[in-house]
Amino acid sequence: MTQLAEAIAREFGTPAVVIDLDRVERNIARLQAACAAAGVANRPHIKTHKSPAIAAMQRDAGASGITCQKLGEAEVMAEAGFDDILISYNILGEEHVGRLAALTARAHVTVCADNPTVVAALADAAGRAGRPLDVLVECDTGRKRAGVETAAEAVALARAIADHDGLRFAGFLLYPPETAIPETQRFFDAARAGVREAGLEPRMVSSGGTPNIVNLGKIAGATEHRAGTYVFNDRMMVACGAATLDDCALHVVATVVSRAGPERGIVDAGSKTLTSDTGGLDGHGLILEHPRARIHKFAEEHGFLDLSACNDRPEVGDVVRIIPNHVCVVVNMVDRLIATRDGRIVGEIPVAARGRIS
Amino acid sequence: MTQLAEAIAREFGTPAVVIDLDRVERNIARLQAACAAAGVANRPHIKTHKSPAIAAMQRDAGASGITCQKLGEAEVMAEAGFDDILISYNILGEEHVGRLAALTARAHVTVCADNPTVVAALADAAGRAGRPLDVLVECDTGRKRAGVETAAEAVALARAIADHDGLRFAGFLLYPPETAIPETQRFFDAARAGVREAGLEPRMVSSGGTPNIVNLGKIAGATEHRAGTYVFNDRMMVACGAATLDDCALHVVATVVSRAGPERGIVDAGSKTLTSDTGGLDGHGLILEHPRARIHKFAEEHGFLDLSACNDRPEVGDVVRIIPNHVCVVVNMVDRLIATRDGRIVGEIPVAARGRIS
Repeated sequence: MTQLAEAIAREFGTPAVVIDLDRVERNIARLQAACAAAGVANRPHIKTHKSPAIAAMQRDAGASGITCQKLGEAEVMAEAGFDDILISYNILGEEHVGRLAALTARAHVTVCADNPTVVAALADAAGRAGRPLDVLVECDTGRKRAGVETAAEAVALARAIADHDGLRFAGFLLYPPETAIPETQRFFDAARAGVREAGLEPRMVSSGGTPNIVNLGKIAGATEHRAGTYVFNDRMMVACGAATLDDCALHVVATVVSRAGPERGIVDAGSKTLTSDTGGLDGHGLILEHPRARIHKFAEEHGFLDLSACNDRPEVGDVVRIIPNHVCVVVNMVDRLIATRDGRIVGEIPVAARGRIS
Repeated sequence: MTQLAEAIAREFGTPAVVIDLDRVERNIARLQAACAAAGVANRPHIKTHKSPAIAAMQRDAGASGITCQKLGEAEVMAEAGFDDILISYNILGEEHVGRLAALTARAHVTVCADNPTVVAALADAAGRAGRPLDVLVECDTGRKRAGVETAAEAVALARAIADHDGLRFAGFLLYPPETAIPETQRFFDAARAGVREAGLEPRMVSSGGTPNIVNLGKIAGATEHRAGTYVFNDRMMVACGAATLDDCALHVVATVVSRAGPERGIVDAGSKTLTSDTGGLDGHGLILEHPRARIHKFAEEHGFLDLSACNDRPEVGDVVRIIPNHVCVVVNMVDRLIATRDGRIVGEIPVAARGRIS
């Protein structure tokens, strides 16, 4: 595989972000089969690849729709023909409301809310669009991010949604910590019982996360799963047991550009390529050719190598492959992925939704 | 200024990256005057703004050329008409050598090297271009990044450069730690004495760094200074005393999208906007409207707010301004900067060299 990395370096220069389509397809097929076995729909999160081409591979393998985190990502996907999109993020504000209204003309969009201000914004969007919007209540079952904190709040918000002309209560959005499945079940059971008392039925109950693939089927009543990272995997997914190194379908091809000291060196992938997301791990990525080398620090274009533990140390000019700690943020740094298959370069895939922060 | 932030949110949506051109001009003028007073040329590093429009403001104020970290950035700047470019990074590898050769047809390019492999690559580029290349020897005087570690190595490398047909030894590239000016002077004095013995003269001695602006003029023999961050400044520059909060010319306009708990909240700027670069500081950015709010954690699109120390806590829908910890990496996340002047939106500036990692 080092030969392939060298060919990539010669053709594209380094650093370059490379995917192995054989592994991508294997990862996609594996999750699809796991969702089917658990009896839940598969709604992959496109935040990891940000690419209509890879979303199409997921759809062709059986995904029932896609998840986007931001309106701008959903716009790119709708433009590419995806017509069943969940935006798993509170949308509000004049400009976003206008864009959401416009987006509903091009795709069936499901949105979410964890507070009344967002519900009012969604109602505004539905009114402008002149068509109803399906809304999930986002529930926080331990992550302390977005989402109502209690089943009672979830029920109250579901009722508020149902009371708005133009909004339909569609169900619940969950993103449970991997260790909080029983707590999530209790929260969801209470919320479902509450909305049923109000004559509402949660048609869609969406759980998520690649580390939660092991929990597929364990939340009774969940109808679908949103996983993103599984498509490429990374060092974090290997560390938490959600993937093996062989499942890592993306790596960065980099060049050793400096060896100014016997125990140290510099690769040309710094924080502008690998990002400073550590994912709580030691070191910033795994160098496949030198697994005992530690990327201990970054400047924007410099990856600082501690080579003290290596017997075989890389030379200036050596091309290496790096598995990133967190793959989603690396994809967001580049405009294209170099695609390989069966050990050969087969093309470039645009990261069409890169940088859609809004 | 909150009114302006709200107008930006209404027009562009959030998060949005905003610059204050009045402050940018003031920062540019201040460094230009400081370089003039110290008798060194000003060669700003474009890594911070990645924009030909802002580089033109620096040139028009008196900058003698520009610095780029990567070939791809230099290509964008040459395309925009900049004709005196220092690339302060080891260049090697087939693809980069070819691009460097092509670039020399469009601009006077000065390059650097800290090892013989890179010198050979540069000679190859000069040969292909059919014109000589000016090469600096990169010296490490304490940062432990790239750069030869001793004056003797610097002299040997200078001789190797001069011995190559097509390469000209041009001088030294320094990037001293702010606390290592005396050590840098000793290193440089020894290196200069050594190259003079070999009949070489360092025409160009380039130092750098915004925190080293306080050291302008303190390295006898330095001919120019490369500073980047000074053009916008950030929380790191405020923390190290290189700037005040009033000198911070860039902020992120964000919206509070969730307040699921009384002491916590979420803003719509996460690591995909502000990045995980902490710069060694506590918290990920300063919220101007709520300075006691702490951005304690990121997901890609979520900034986690700890509001426990705030008396006045933001509501869902509130628009806030965030000074990032590290401004250079934030600019690299977006395709445009919203430009303001005198409290009004005046346009958009493309980040033309964004993402040029190679």
